Amino acid sequence: IAKEVAKLLEMKAQLGTDEGKHKFVLKTPKGTRDFGPKEMAIRERAFKAIISCFKRHGAEVIDTPVFELKETLTGKYGEDSKLIYDLKDQGGELLSLRYDLTVPFARYLAMNKITNIKRYHIAKVYRRDNPAMTRGRYREFYQCDFDIAGQFDPMIPDAECLKIVHEILSDLQLGDFVIKVNDRRILDGMFAVCGVPDSKFRTICSSVDKLDKVPWEEVRSEMVGEKGLSPEAADRIGEYVQLHGGLDLIEQLLQDPQLSQNKVAKEGLGDMKLLFEYLTLFGITGKISFDLSLARGLDYYTGVIFEAVLLQQDHEHLEEPLSVGSVAGGGRYDGLVGMFDAKGRKVPCVGVSIGIERIFSILEQRLEASEEKIRTTETQVLVASAQKKLLEERLRLISELWDAGIKAEMLYKKNPKLLNQLQYCEETGIPLVAIVGEQELKDGVVKLRIVATREEVNVRRESLVEEIRIRTSQC
Amino acid sequence: IAKEVAKLLEMKAQLGTDEGKHKFVLKTPKGTRDFGPKEMAIRERAFKAIISCFKRHGAEVIDTPVFELKETLTGKYGEDSKLIYDLKDQGGELLSLRYDLTVPFARYLAMNKITNIKRYHIAKVYRRDNPAMTRGRYREFYQCDFDIAGQFDPMIPDAECLKIVHEILSDLQLGDFVIKVNDRRILDGMFAVCGVPDSKFRTICSSVDKLDKVPWEEVRSEMVGEKGLSPEAADRIGEYVQLHGGLDLIEQLLQDPQLSQNKVAKEGLGDMKLLFEYLTLFGITGKISFDLSLARGLDYYTGVIFEAVLLQQDHEHLEEPLSVGSVAGGGRYDGLVGMFDAKGRKVPCVGVSIGIERIFSILEQRLEASEEKIRTTETQVLVASAQKKLLEERLRLISELWDAGIKAEMLYKKNPKLLNQLQYCEETGIPLVAIVGEQELKDGVVKLRIVATREEVNVRRESLVEEIRIRTSQC
Repeated sequence: IAKEVAKLLEMKAQLGTDEGKHKFVLKTPKGTRDFGPKEMAIRERAFKAIISCFKRHGAEVIDTPVFELKETLTGKYGEDSKLIYDLKDQGGELLSLRYDLTVPFARYLAMNKITNIKRYHIAKVYRRDNPAMTRGRYREFYQCDFDIAGQFDPMIPDAECLKIVHEILSDLQLGDFVIKVNDRRILDGMFAVCGVPDSKFRTICSSVDKLDKVPWEEVRSEMVGEKGLSPEAADRIGEYVQLHGGLDLIEQLLQDPQLSQNKVAKEGLGDMKLLFEYLTLFGITGKISFDLSLARGLDYYTGVIFEAVLLQQDHEHLEEPLSVGSVAGGGRYDGLVGMFDAKGRKVPCVGVSIGIERIFSILEQRLEASEEKIRTTETQVLVASAQKKLLEERLRLISELWDAGIKAEMLYKKNPKLLNQLQYCEETGIPLVAIVGEQELKDGVVKLRIVATREEVNVRRESLVEEIRIRTSQC
Repeated sequence: IAKEVAKLLEMKAQLGTDEGKHKFVLKTPKGTRDFGPKEMAIRERAFKAIISCFKRHGAEVIDTPVFELKETLTGKYGEDSKLIYDLKDQGGELLSLRYDLTVPFARYLAMNKITNIKRYHIAKVYRRDNPAMTRGRYREFYQCDFDIAGQFDPMIPDAECLKIVHEILSDLQLGDFVIKVNDRRILDGMFAVCGVPDSKFRTICSSVDKLDKVPWEEVRSEMVGEKGLSPEAADRIGEYVQLHGGLDLIEQLLQDPQLSQNKVAKEGLGDMKLLFEYLTLFGITGKISFDLSLARGLDYYTGVIFEAVLLQQDHEHLEEPLSVGSVAGGGRYDGLVGMFDAKGRKVPCVGVSIGIERIFSILEQRLEASEEKIRTTETQVLVASAQKKLLEERLRLISELWDAGIKAEMLYKKNPKLLNQLQYCEETGIPLVAIVGEQELKDGVVKLRIVATREEVNVRRESLVEEIRIRTSQC
């Protein structure tokens, strides 16, 4: 049916262009959106908080192209590969839009033989997923990634990634949150002791990954029905995945008769204990939950995995409750760079990705609810005139101000009315008006009006720049 | 041949993936590149200058998706349309990567019925052109656009666009430059009085556009040979297009017996005169050249057009001279928004686009030549230890610093050598080291080392944050 609909839509689109220029649909592509000035102001606020955190942790920044060779992305995303956008073959290389920033990062490391770097990268990624835009799920969306690559002592960089998530979510004041933590090695050990055959580890892991969206019963029936797992194995998994806690749970599992006999599980649990010790030193264990149901969808994780979830705030807003969810995730991927190296040389990596769209949705809704009027420009002064025929004088003055680094605007009219000029300041939040008039020109002064108080003072022209600087220094 | 080569390359790529994981080519797509930390530091410097200029002129900022419906781009770019990247038809809408930021801007205005806005937009655009990467010509590249949309009095916004180009190129200290200015109406009038048939205006305009790359003789033979223009008409064009100057040339052409009889040419010349009056008030006519050979390739311009060119610096650098060229361009496009409006309602627009890649090339080469060591992080302090077994103390201290907003790093080793820690500071330019040791812990102090002077002072732990702030406040 979807194919048929697509065909019909396409035919309709073609008809549209045949019928004439003005018949096409005026929209952005499905699952994408424009950011107008207001949305950009919110977006830049969020980015500022995130970037300043990444810089506080000493990260460098890199950028990579929006598309990669198709083969660079092949075999990295498991079941999600079908969501990759391909470019049309127009001759030359076969290309795909990036699906995340992690695979391009690994490609960058291998290509430049970099074995040691701490970097952030903020850019858009592309997934042909089913969009749910009111809940902040788009086909084009930003990821804010921070990764540490290099051979280091266990869990020190991993702990820093969690500290970063904690800092950013606290800083953005998004309400209460919890960071779930698990380890692929613990999951694999758990699958082994539950009797899952090796060959089914990844696919059963994908089923577990759905537990944050669907109830256990459904996941169980997918495991047994679609994936052919024995009911007994599924039930044993069912018991483990309801466990979550802190250091106590780690200790309990280290004593677990089955898990403690499994080599990888034991390694994972040992590292998890170390991680919690470091997180205790950072003072953030209060928001961390060791959760055996956390699996993460992507294939490339090899160790610690984590995901930050915003907790629903009851009755805080009167509107319908926001459907929140995962806002950050990440983990350790020690094998990915080696997949790009001719000799398979590995570069261990751990990183975190902040999913900013959901955060935008929340910040936008909050701003909507509040009375705060957000400014979309930083203009300090409007250059205005009180009488007609003063365009030249306005141009001369505004040019002086620009050259002195003052943020200034004027209306693009020959003879604007003073009222319209003052109104423009009210609407856009410009705090000052520099008014030129015949008398002021004769006297070598400019009348400076403070919009908020309607106070007016004459300022000597040569002192105007300094006066504007002083009066807007708190902005 | 190109097709055959593409086929062969494709077969080779397929063979590659069949032969095993490690056989693929490790590269970015043709005409694209990664930005490493150093390149990013340069890029962010350039962006900072550009954005602060746009904000100084009161612009808001918007963003649009990287792809648009294919039909949104159709019929906007004339001969260049073949360079558009299409996405593969994977079901659903037919999409193309944006070719510039102007058409998406016009689509945005029409879609949201905005008739009045001053905005900037900095983003990557995509052209399947022949890359010449050493000269800064890429298939994926940034454009920094500033546009003013709305019905205003003539040439006031147009003059501001030129002022902006002047400010940015001066601010970036790229050496001497000239901004060529012309008007599509003057060109059209000139074509008319030279005897070019109406139907050939756009294609002859495309030929004139090549004059900055190829000599007149070649352009003439294209006009006459390929495009079927009469030799007499071509020769008359040839006389006009060698003219360039300032107000005097405008006055001269206003007296030109043919041009002065042509309605559109007269309008264009009248506005050009007004523009020069405004530019005189801005004090920037010294860098402006009214140049009849400037045509601009894109179809959508309707009035003033302009292009900024860097002038070759003789013998300033000892290396081979940099091949410089156009670094900014723009003009008036009063019809574009109307093409997206069902009722054809027009929104007059004028704007400028800064082509940043060439500017990057120059800044990169200059930095290479200079001795300046560019820092790629902003880290203020490295948290180090003088003895073994102090990992926990380092973690505790760095966490305190992060929480206080200090930019701090530590080595991810349990027991790093002090020498290695100091060396890391030298390499990365970190100015301070906070050293914890047994004795310092007992005394409740931290040893603060100033890397540049090797001076060391004991600072009480509770004063450390303040001390670091003071000592790095000049950074």
